[in-house]
Amino acid sequence: MAKKAAITGNMLIAQSGGPTMVINQSLIGAVLEAKKHKDIKDIYGSLHGIQGILNEDFINLRRESDKNLELIAQTPSSGLGSVRKKPTPEDCAKMFEIMKKYNIRFFFYIGGNDSAETAHIVNEEAKKSDYELHCYHIPKTVDNDLRENDHTPGFASAARFVACAFMGDNLDNRALPGVKINIIMGRHAGFLTAASALARQYEDDGPHLIYVPEKPFDMQSFAEDVKKVYTKYGRCVVAVSEGISEKDGTPVAAALTAEVEVDSHGNVQLSGSGALGDRLADYIKNKTRISRVRADTFGYLQRSFPACVSEVDAKEARQVGAAAVKNAVQGDTDGSIAIKRAKGKKYKVSFERVPLKNVAKETRHMPDNYINKKGNDVTQAFIDYAKPLVGKLPKMGRFKGVAVKKK
Amino acid sequence: MAKKAAITGNMLIAQSGGPTMVINQSLIGAVLEAKKHKDIKDIYGSLHGIQGILNEDFINLRRESDKNLELIAQTPSSGLGSVRKKPTPEDCAKMFEIMKKYNIRFFFYIGGNDSAETAHIVNEEAKKSDYELHCYHIPKTVDNDLRENDHTPGFASAARFVACAFMGDNLDNRALPGVKINIIMGRHAGFLTAASALARQYEDDGPHLIYVPEKPFDMQSFAEDVKKVYTKYGRCVVAVSEGISEKDGTPVAAALTAEVEVDSHGNVQLSGSGALGDRLADYIKNKTRISRVRADTFGYLQRSFPACVSEVDAKEARQVGAAAVKNAVQGDTDGSIAIKRAKGKKYKVSFERVPLKNVAKETRHMPDNYINKKGNDVTQAFIDYAKPLVGKLPKMGRFKGVAVKKK
Repeated sequence: MAKKAAITGNMLIAQSGGPTMVINQSLIGAVLEAKKHKDIKDIYGSLHGIQGILNEDFINLRRESDKNLELIAQTPSSGLGSVRKKPTPEDCAKMFEIMKKYNIRFFFYIGGNDSAETAHIVNEEAKKSDYELHCYHIPKTVDNDLRENDHTPGFASAARFVACAFMGDNLDNRALPGVKINIIMGRHAGFLTAASALARQYEDDGPHLIYVPEKPFDMQSFAEDVKKVYTKYGRCVVAVSEGISEKDGTPVAAALTAEVEVDSHGNVQLSGSGALGDRLADYIKNKTRISRVRADTFGYLQRSFPACVSEVDAKEARQVGAAAVKNAVQGDTDGSIAIKRAKGKKYKVSFERVPLKNVAKETRHMPDNYINKKGNDVTQAFIDYAKPLVGKLPKMGRFKGVAVKKK
Repeated sequence: MAKKAAITGNMLIAQSGGPTMVINQSLIGAVLEAKKHKDIKDIYGSLHGIQGILNEDFINLRRESDKNLELIAQTPSSGLGSVRKKPTPEDCAKMFEIMKKYNIRFFFYIGGNDSAETAHIVNEEAKKSDYELHCYHIPKTVDNDLRENDHTPGFASAARFVACAFMGDNLDNRALPGVKINIIMGRHAGFLTAASALARQYEDDGPHLIYVPEKPFDMQSFAEDVKKVYTKYGRCVVAVSEGISEKDGTPVAAALTAEVEVDSHGNVQLSGSGALGDRLADYIKNKTRISRVRADTFGYLQRSFPACVSEVDAKEARQVGAAAVKNAVQGDTDGSIAIKRAKGKKYKVSFERVPLKNVAKETRHMPDNYINKKGNDVTQAFIDYAKPLVGKLPKMGRFKGVAVKKK
């Protein structure tokens, strides 16, 4: 039986961390659901996450037309702006003061593990200071590394972009053979890099090698792997996670930068630089004497490109937003919404409320059975996992190629 | 009145230079047209351009089903493989020997200015050695730098990718403000970088600054430009051509690489490395003390991404391929097909045969009236030129954003 919300009042929603192609779907899903419930009075959006709360930078989301909300839902990146900020207890005290003034009793924070940590901190501090608040985290991350979740909104669209990019790039490499290294987002989890495998349609299609942060990266084995593929196919396409690390855990990319940028959650900057790809390309050039070696770093396009959204992802992102609001108005005071996949052949998901602390801070990694033994490819188990999320991909044509008899 | 082909025989077609998203449209357009004319007997595809001729690596294109040809037409990159090779007179002599054996009397070479040069050399050598050959160049290039042409097949789809990428990236930068520098393909011509301007939909949208190779690039003015934009909007998105050069003509990117790769046409490698973006980002960081500065190099995705093709581009690429064959069978022995735009408000093009030498080797640049006086943006004249090529772009949503009164 549905419980009743413990309290009525105004709602505040905000976005945090790296944007995705569908994070606005979750935002709009929550807002449209909130409009259905009379326990929720005003609906405010905070600009740039908790920074907007501290600054009292709120916009009135009831003043937006449904038509505009629908357009925003289909627009990539965080429509309310984002932030990377971990609140101190003092920040929380100040936020509650402000929230009280605006009678905010429903708080929704859309983001990844760091944002879940923020929601968790806010929730614990609210309890300590007897501030009655329904506090929810709504999941998103292209890294797909949230615990409790089968997968995370934002991942599938980024994965679709990566798969499409590799389809085209594989053909580019087939036309002008050489070694091509592509660097993919993923700090600790290799899911997005692994999604490059979905690009394969013919036996000799790349990516021929896939390296994820879950396995230690060794330069020498890398060069040997590349040489082996190059000998077989006369070319080699490689997918590499930006987060690949040496045996001792040092990220290969971080070792290249003199000054390392770190945010308040302790994350080291890995994206927004081509250094890792360039270093790997130089290494392969020197080690193998293959003349044509190129590297591309896909960068921020993976999370923001507007013309490559997964339909499943867009739909589910909308649903998790709505689910958070439904749970809150039914009287469950806090939690995060996790996507659970039903067992069985047919793809089916449900949305479950889980404790904030289960999603906060720590991330999950690719399970061992998704990575091959050599640590340079993914398994069929991963393909089976990822395929229904990404949706139908364009079919690449190829000549039957009946050779003309030499004269 | 239509003339008759001087000779009947077999046809050979090949692709050369950097692939594009629609180069296969031209290939299939030519093949389907050839099938209509009884003066053309066998239809061969040479694998990897003129290298395939020297190796006698031909496939029989009459053995491909129309259904497969249509699928290949929609597939990015060069289905027959590509090459970057300038033929010597000895290569030509060898090629004619081989062509004679296969009774090849129609030769079509799809590519950019270097491929036009190849076709021109082959044609001149054929005349010298009295080898009767209908020799045609079919244009393609994402750089849009072929002389005689209003625009070139391949450009519009790459431009569409760049515009979409900037739409998303501008929103990413709006969510997490800072300076974002994106490096775009374009050796000598800035058309593709300029196409980033099509991403703008709201007054404060990026790219806020655009630098093309046509104007000398000065690091200090660059930093001043960025600071000015950052002061105004609190953020700055920049589009930079990979080919930007200092006053004396040295490419900024080339100065960064110890060993410079050069192909047989004399082109220096600029793509496939993130060094230019990283250097510009470091410079801005140091000069302006803005903390969040990122760079992405869009790389090969610009010419190979399968899910972002311009409809106009696909259609015209098909038409130039067909036009080359039509001209050849009507008895015009050589030439290149150029796209000419009709004057007037309504977008309309025609396909004209032009002499090979007019398209070969030298490239064209952006006209002065497409670049603003300061050399850091494009003009409305460029937008008017590029818009009909790229097609309708997705609309980005944004909150009306009625501020909640501070309490």
